Amino acid sequence: MNDFTYYNPTKIELGRGKENNIGEYISQSGVKKVLLLYGVGSIKKFGLYERIISSLKKSNIEFEELSGVVSNPLLSKVNEGVEIVKGNNIEAILGVGGGSVVDSAKAIAAGSKYDGDVWDFFIHKAEITEALPVFTVMTLSAAASEMNGNSVVMKDETKQKYSIASVLVNPVVSVINPELMATVSKEYLAYSAVDVISHCIEVYFTASVHPNFNSRIVESIIKSIMETTEILLKDPDNYDARAEFAWVAIQGLNGLTPTGTKGGTFPNHMIEHSLSALYNVPHGAGLAVVIPAWMKWYIKQNKPQFKRFAREIFDGESMNDAIEGLENWFNKIGAPTTLKGLNISRDGIEEIAENASQTAKVWGFSELYSKETIIEILQKA
Amino acid sequence: MNDFTYYNPTKIELGRGKENNIGEYISQSGVKKVLLLYGVGSIKKFGLYERIISSLKKSNIEFEELSGVVSNPLLSKVNEGVEIVKGNNIEAILGVGGGSVVDSAKAIAAGSKYDGDVWDFFIHKAEITEALPVFTVMTLSAAASEMNGNSVVMKDETKQKYSIASVLVNPVVSVINPELMATVSKEYLAYSAVDVISHCIEVYFTASVHPNFNSRIVESIIKSIMETTEILLKDPDNYDARAEFAWVAIQGLNGLTPTGTKGGTFPNHMIEHSLSALYNVPHGAGLAVVIPAWMKWYIKQNKPQFKRFAREIFDGESMNDAIEGLENWFNKIGAPTTLKGLNISRDGIEEIAENASQTAKVWGFSELYSKETIIEILQKA
Repeated sequence: MNDFTYYNPTKIELGRGKENNIGEYISQSGVKKVLLLYGVGSIKKFGLYERIISSLKKSNIEFEELSGVVSNPLLSKVNEGVEIVKGNNIEAILGVGGGSVVDSAKAIAAGSKYDGDVWDFFIHKAEITEALPVFTVMTLSAAASEMNGNSVVMKDETKQKYSIASVLVNPVVSVINPELMATVSKEYLAYSAVDVISHCIEVYFTASVHPNFNSRIVESIIKSIMETTEILLKDPDNYDARAEFAWVAIQGLNGLTPTGTKGGTFPNHMIEHSLSALYNVPHGAGLAVVIPAWMKWYIKQNKPQFKRFAREIFDGESMNDAIEGLENWFNKIGAPTTLKGLNISRDGIEEIAENASQTAKVWGFSELYSKETIIEILQKA
Repeated sequence: MNDFTYYNPTKIELGRGKENNIGEYISQSGVKKVLLLYGVGSIKKFGLYERIISSLKKSNIEFEELSGVVSNPLLSKVNEGVEIVKGNNIEAILGVGGGSVVDSAKAIAAGSKYDGDVWDFFIHKAEITEALPVFTVMTLSAAASEMNGNSVVMKDETKQKYSIASVLVNPVVSVINPELMATVSKEYLAYSAVDVISHCIEVYFTASVHPNFNSRIVESIIKSIMETTEILLKDPDNYDARAEFAWVAIQGLNGLTPTGTKGGTFPNHMIEHSLSALYNVPHGAGLAVVIPAWMKWYIKQNKPQFKRFAREIFDGESMNDAIEGLENWFNKIGAPTTLKGLNISRDGIEEIAENASQTAKVWGFSELYSKETIIEILQKA
């Protein structure tokens, strides 16, 4: 087992109506003024916006607002947020939405305590040493951003979709009311399921050291995500399945699955970031296309783990059942598994591979994933 | 799924030689003087004591010492610690040892910030509102005390073995160097394995709401504990198995397994505390006796979960395989499964049941576990 540090100080408040306590949670941290950050739609459903405002007022918490965070969130919006924070003595960021809003909230939290350009953190030119506290109320679960220190943001003009990771931007409190997620579309539920599965399998298949316990946890997460997704596609109002989906999704990327492993890489995310950067496809949809292609290319590099995956998840006997099983399941839940399914033609592969090979450099995997290798993988999609 | 709050701010530092950084970890919290608390033996092995002292000195951390914490730790020792802390401007407790040392460190941490008698917390006469920070260096893994806010202490004269639970006494940093655990005896390794399994199954079998994900996590923990225990009994120097055992043991009681469940009770711990209080048997040995007896008494109250357990853990078909499988495995690893194996005669049952029924009252389970019921359970042991 590899040495590790595990530290996840985020408090999760899961349950019906808990968003009504958000003012109190914030106030317990001594914060008096927040930037309320949200996206383009979900906060206006079910009177959520009104309930948040009312909770903040009840706890005497002042706020400024910034809306319009889009999926595949943009650096320009982050910069806008940083400016508002710096000009208004804001002490914390409250993100209400899904992963994109929370990722943006974290970038704003770090950028607000930094004199330079927040993008410096994403290109490893500077390290985060301080950040404002982040709070969240979630309306979509998949990214696990509500319980980790990761943030992925895209620089508008260059289409570079890069990430930061620091426990300093872990949310202090994340509120998860599964009822708020009941109107997530079937497409987005499917994409979310793919995203969670992708978080789990990246390290599972690529780590040179991977204890059995970690494999068991990953398999538990995947089985529960598949089970609850199938329930929710038939019965979107099933509260228990929605709650279990939300909590299990968090386990996929809150730091538990890679503990003690060695050398895991994130090739599917690396390649997908370029797909969604260039074509603005939903992250989970892009992953559903990249994963089977990558698995076909990679399978011979870790035969035992593919065989294990096939057996544990799909009751399969050969290692190819791992790929076939996952591909079939993605299709079953309505996620695309080919570039064609995303309306991306063969001609686009070159540009995607060029963009992804830049990410490979920033992430330090350019030896494993050259532009030619990425083209080879994408041709299988 | 039941509403829940999950919050576990303990940082885990797992790896070879990490005890050499303990001074630095403490110093990062701004602490300048600690109470160094330890037991009766393990700290003097491998020069651990010298390394801890040297690390503290290197970080300019002053310390007072208190040794002699025994397994089934005593309130008198806790009171001794509180007195030293209050008289010496001590700012944190550093416990070096196993669960008993850490449990005592937590009680001292809470008692040092309280004007009354620390026992008030254990009998629910007062609530912990403040505590000194706790740090740990572990020499034995089982109780998961290194990553939770629980403490079990026994009042010397009355043999009441009660507990507290507060996130305020969660260790700030816990250091786990699996190498320090390599000389744990085979008996204590077996008892530790039983303890971890017991933490997992208490809620697994007794909760009225128990999501599938939680069942999967519990089964993952138990499988990994059984696997690594069997490796270590044959090959005590197997570092990877030792490390995996240590980390998995923590998952058994760090708050993850009961999230979203409803109504779990801890009957085996409740009864065992009386066994070890009255006969000073090791906690894990007592549990190995109580668990099969309790299961035989309880089985009909949750048939589906017993059937599931039998299938998942022992590849068994009937629910009785759950009990038989566990009993056989306890015997295989050398843990006793009868009162006779602990040298406790049938005549002792009455007194044990009387003591345990008092605990049932304090824990609020006296309707489920009357003295008569506890006698009925113990007669099966």
